[in-house]
Amino acid sequence: MSNSPSILIVGAGAIGALYGSALSRSGARVGVVCRSDFEQVQRDGYRIASKLLGDHVFRPHAVLRDVAACATPPDYLILTVKVLPGVDRAALIRPAVGPGTVIVLIENGIDIEPEITAAFPDNELLSALAFVMVSRTASGEIHHQSLGSLAMGRYPAGATPAGERLVSLLKAGQIECRLTDNVVAARWQKAVWNAVFNPISILGGVLDTEAMLRTEADQAFIRKAMNEVCAVAAADGHPMNPKLVDRMIADTRALPGYKTSMALDYENGRPMEIEAILGNVVRAGQRLNVPIPALESVYAVAKMVEGKRA
Amino acid sequence: MSNSPSILIVGAGAIGALYGSALSRSGARVGVVCRSDFEQVQRDGYRIASKLLGDHVFRPHAVLRDVAACATPPDYLILTVKVLPGVDRAALIRPAVGPGTVIVLIENGIDIEPEITAAFPDNELLSALAFVMVSRTASGEIHHQSLGSLAMGRYPAGATPAGERLVSLLKAGQIECRLTDNVVAARWQKAVWNAVFNPISILGGVLDTEAMLRTEADQAFIRKAMNEVCAVAAADGHPMNPKLVDRMIADTRALPGYKTSMALDYENGRPMEIEAILGNVVRAGQRLNVPIPALESVYAVAKMVEGKRA
Repeated sequence: MSNSPSILIVGAGAIGALYGSALSRSGARVGVVCRSDFEQVQRDGYRIASKLLGDHVFRPHAVLRDVAACATPPDYLILTVKVLPGVDRAALIRPAVGPGTVIVLIENGIDIEPEITAAFPDNELLSALAFVMVSRTASGEIHHQSLGSLAMGRYPAGATPAGERLVSLLKAGQIECRLTDNVVAARWQKAVWNAVFNPISILGGVLDTEAMLRTEADQAFIRKAMNEVCAVAAADGHPMNPKLVDRMIADTRALPGYKTSMALDYENGRPMEIEAILGNVVRAGQRLNVPIPALESVYAVAKMVEGKRA
Repeated sequence: MSNSPSILIVGAGAIGALYGSALSRSGARVGVVCRSDFEQVQRDGYRIASKLLGDHVFRPHAVLRDVAACATPPDYLILTVKVLPGVDRAALIRPAVGPGTVIVLIENGIDIEPEITAAFPDNELLSALAFVMVSRTASGEIHHQSLGSLAMGRYPAGATPAGERLVSLLKAGQIECRLTDNVVAARWQKAVWNAVFNPISILGGVLDTEAMLRTEADQAFIRKAMNEVCAVAAADGHPMNPKLVDRMIADTRALPGYKTSMALDYENGRPMEIEAILGNVVRAGQRLNVPIPALESVYAVAKMVEGKRA
């Protein structure tokens, strides 16, 4: 690697633009592959509105319409597309992955790495979780509402100088970023919230967090479902802190009601990551013989809702 | 009783008007208590559009705004109001119940009789289930789309000359009507369908029957939930036919997708009988120690949806 690493962001929507911008500010040469906003971004870059980072424009080093247009494999390829059935992420990135390319996933869900490691067994894989509220408001326009931190680790485990370097760059770009030696546990921890609140939020029109936690009975059901995720995580070798569920419920109740990312996808007719976020948890539970009746029920009904829309 | 029995229908909406009309055609003196459409019905009666019974006008013998306006207790008091928390049905009918009045419930749900028998322990109680698609389309206007049969029996059990007489009158008025000596079992059988399809239909905007049975996975979940209702029924002393669930699913799939009554209530902002139709099944299962995780999950989410609207 040179002193100024090359980074290609594939699927540069809101998440990709935000972190790409931070890396660019730190001196990395950041290219983006963006299909829908290609003309706009090529001409004007991304206009990013952000209280945390300041309103600014991010002009990528290169703007590509397609991964195949990438002439030289980058040092880091950051994948930020949604994890959806029928989307072959390995095929998508293959044209740009060289022997030394570190692949970085900033994506939601559980068990989303094996598909990538199977396709690229010799490349280092960094798996990352974003804790951020950011959305695309118009072509090339990104609104960063709040938060922004990343948790990142080598998959499945291990030390990672490449990860340390990327974290340094992100931190220099004002992104709070934590390197973890157990990113799978971190994914499970996020799943305890995500796998429950996201799919339930699309039942009944849209339920915001307040509507899912209004009564004692609501909270008891949410707690039951979250405890099921914890049980699957434990069976998978990643026991959660026993106080996690109650703390997450209390933290969620302390905020004004808000819509989950899946609820926003549902409202806006966008594909939903039901499989990555809940389906993979359900399959893990079934594989590990963990009783997960609440999760199975929510999954079944969420799939009906998804199927109705399709 | 005289040869021409007196009947008071309390809560004369679509169901009450339809069966009241049939009884009136058979020579009964039928009075109605109807609040919302009082003026219209008093002036013009009910205009009933029905392929099965023919379009016709039903002019009640008396139109009352209130149960207390009933001067003489009727031979039969037929209650057709929804079963909703906070609605004291016993208090509602008390002004018109005399020592010899037979109380008739044409209402949905499970365990909806004890509240009435506790209040009127010396009155005969007939419990009835309507298999009918009928709706109020405007003030005093009723549209009878299809079906129309009743299953009726003495609660909790026993022979009932009064029931036989009422059934004869209904049959003479062209209503298919079956007297059962086990109306609780009949209620459980109807609950196997109702307690599952109705609450699920209000999740995800509105799901019609087709959207709830599209995939194998959909059908597997519906079957699981219906089997839980069967297990509760069996524990309550009413084992269902082992073929019932598969037959109901096959019959439902054979029809074009349609909206449940609860889905129509949900769409039109009307109160929903979640407690009578599913909540009482859940409570029975919990009381009888029957595992009902799918029903508990659907109930929990349906209550969130209801709570959001309130």
